[in-house]
Amino acid sequence: MGNILCGVDIGGTKLSVALTTLDGVIIDKCIDCDHVEKSECGMTDQIKFNIRRMLKRNNLTESDLCGIGIGCAGHIRFRDGTIITTSNLKGYKGYPLRNTIQQGFSVPVTLDNDANAQAFGEFKFGAGRGFNNMVFLTISTGIGAGIIIDSKLYRGMTGTAGEFGHTIIEPESELVCTCGNRGCLMACACGMALPHLFRKKLKEGKRSSLELPENFDYSLVDGKLLKQGLDIGDALSKEIILDSARYVGIGIYNIFQALNPQLIVLGGGLLSWGEFYVDHIRKTFYDLARDMIFDPVEIKISDIGPDAGVIGAASLNLEIC
Amino acid sequence: MGNILCGVDIGGTKLSVALTTLDGVIIDKCIDCDHVEKSECGMTDQIKFNIRRMLKRNNLTESDLCGIGIGCAGHIRFRDGTIITTSNLKGYKGYPLRNTIQQGFSVPVTLDNDANAQAFGEFKFGAGRGFNNMVFLTISTGIGAGIIIDSKLYRGMTGTAGEFGHTIIEPESELVCTCGNRGCLMACACGMALPHLFRKKLKEGKRSSLELPENFDYSLVDGKLLKQGLDIGDALSKEIILDSARYVGIGIYNIFQALNPQLIVLGGGLLSWGEFYVDHIRKTFYDLARDMIFDPVEIKISDIGPDAGVIGAASLNLEIC
Repeated sequence: MGNILCGVDIGGTKLSVALTTLDGVIIDKCIDCDHVEKSECGMTDQIKFNIRRMLKRNNLTESDLCGIGIGCAGHIRFRDGTIITTSNLKGYKGYPLRNTIQQGFSVPVTLDNDANAQAFGEFKFGAGRGFNNMVFLTISTGIGAGIIIDSKLYRGMTGTAGEFGHTIIEPESELVCTCGNRGCLMACACGMALPHLFRKKLKEGKRSSLELPENFDYSLVDGKLLKQGLDIGDALSKEIILDSARYVGIGIYNIFQALNPQLIVLGGGLLSWGEFYVDHIRKTFYDLARDMIFDPVEIKISDIGPDAGVIGAASLNLEIC
Repeated sequence: MGNILCGVDIGGTKLSVALTTLDGVIIDKCIDCDHVEKSECGMTDQIKFNIRRMLKRNNLTESDLCGIGIGCAGHIRFRDGTIITTSNLKGYKGYPLRNTIQQGFSVPVTLDNDANAQAFGEFKFGAGRGFNNMVFLTISTGIGAGIIIDSKLYRGMTGTAGEFGHTIIEPESELVCTCGNRGCLMACACGMALPHLFRKKLKEGKRSSLELPENFDYSLVDGKLLKQGLDIGDALSKEIILDSARYVGIGIYNIFQALNPQLIVLGGGLLSWGEFYVDHIRKTFYDLARDMIFDPVEIKISDIGPDAGVIGAASLNLEIC
């Protein structure tokens, strides 16, 4: 068995393929942005082609690989290696992605949810090194998570464990999630909530000092815009960021009560809000957990960086090595 | 090693000691109700004395025992076998109960939270037989739970995992939990919420057809009273039972999203509300989970019966056998 890891990250905008060392250091990487247009067959061919291309241009062969790990957003039936549903791509309902890729290679192929892959990457190469139990939470447009128990990914019956984003934390909320339920953590706390929260605060008579064009389409309010607001001291942006932090803090507290992990690692796009955001997440958590913390619980920030998706996918190979 | 299990259940009103077969069938049992009055030392002596008395009167010796399992309400530091805090007994902060009992016996002694013990009992002898992953939820005055992953109790870092009762499901709730937080599942859904809910509905102008004495102390409203209400078709009692069912349904849905278990087992005093209650718990769960269930999830009722506490405690011995 080789000592190179191959990772494939299938996102909604980018298809990334990378080769890494056993320590998760990227040797080479390629990114395509046209995979979403392609048929199921077209995209799997593209993945196979990219892997071979990467091997070739690095003077490697398949025998140098430890395995191929694939991370894909959506619900994955882990045991079978199938995509049950994914909102990032058209089609793929019940699609046997693992076997389709496996047919082109003799090294083992693993398919998992992208948040699980990132969680395991963080555990092997990032903020989770040295811990046995941790939960990873990625906060972007949605909220994904992965659970590490006894140094292994805990996936549950189907493979869909760790969907803390869909846990309900405010049943009477006016915020409805993409899943159709009211008051999921994901509906209240992350990117998908921002346009609603911005509009709501304006309606309450609050004013933003962000210079927005006339007839601005508030559905475009996103993390980046609020980061600009934060940087210029816009009170309305700051309020929304604190609201999000409070919900994430409650979410983390619930994870703490449910799983009593040693470590919670936070990642994802909204972390660009920086210390202002993370400090309030931590404050909310510790205010709630208070005297119910009997051993130190650490809340750390992901330290794998922008390639977390593909490095996480690569790390999946280490679960079976 | 012997083939008899010894279980000790330390509750707020009863101290139960039982001997069981390896299948969890009770051979003999004794119950004391004066243990809460005693000193720490007095109660541990009482436990040791009862175990020896039970062995003697069944013509058994210590060598017939597989081990001694103790279930105790409260926060338990599992690795050390200490009680961190317990609300059922005075004192016992940081009390090394396992070692204190261990000093009297040569067979292994295990100490765990009572809900964990019941969860493992249910897994070995009850509704959980044949499953690998399950969550047990006991709904009484409070809500306790235990998590079984890969046929083992999952306890987390300290040993306090599974505290779903303290997860927050309504941050703006007017209901405050014994832990001091607002809107815990426990504060909203179980026995401790009933007096508040009863008073609130009366204030809203609703009337109960229960015949209550004048100057009735509404802090006495409990599961039994509402069961009487349910039996006579009292609309107010039924409303409260449905409210509780809805919150428990949300709690179970959150557990499903977090852990994706094969099975959720419900136990505890409020289950005396019967099918009316459980049907609405199930309905709430399935309405929320809908098309996110990809493999059958079972919601079953505990079938160990009234001795679940002490049988669960006895079952703890099988974890190490």
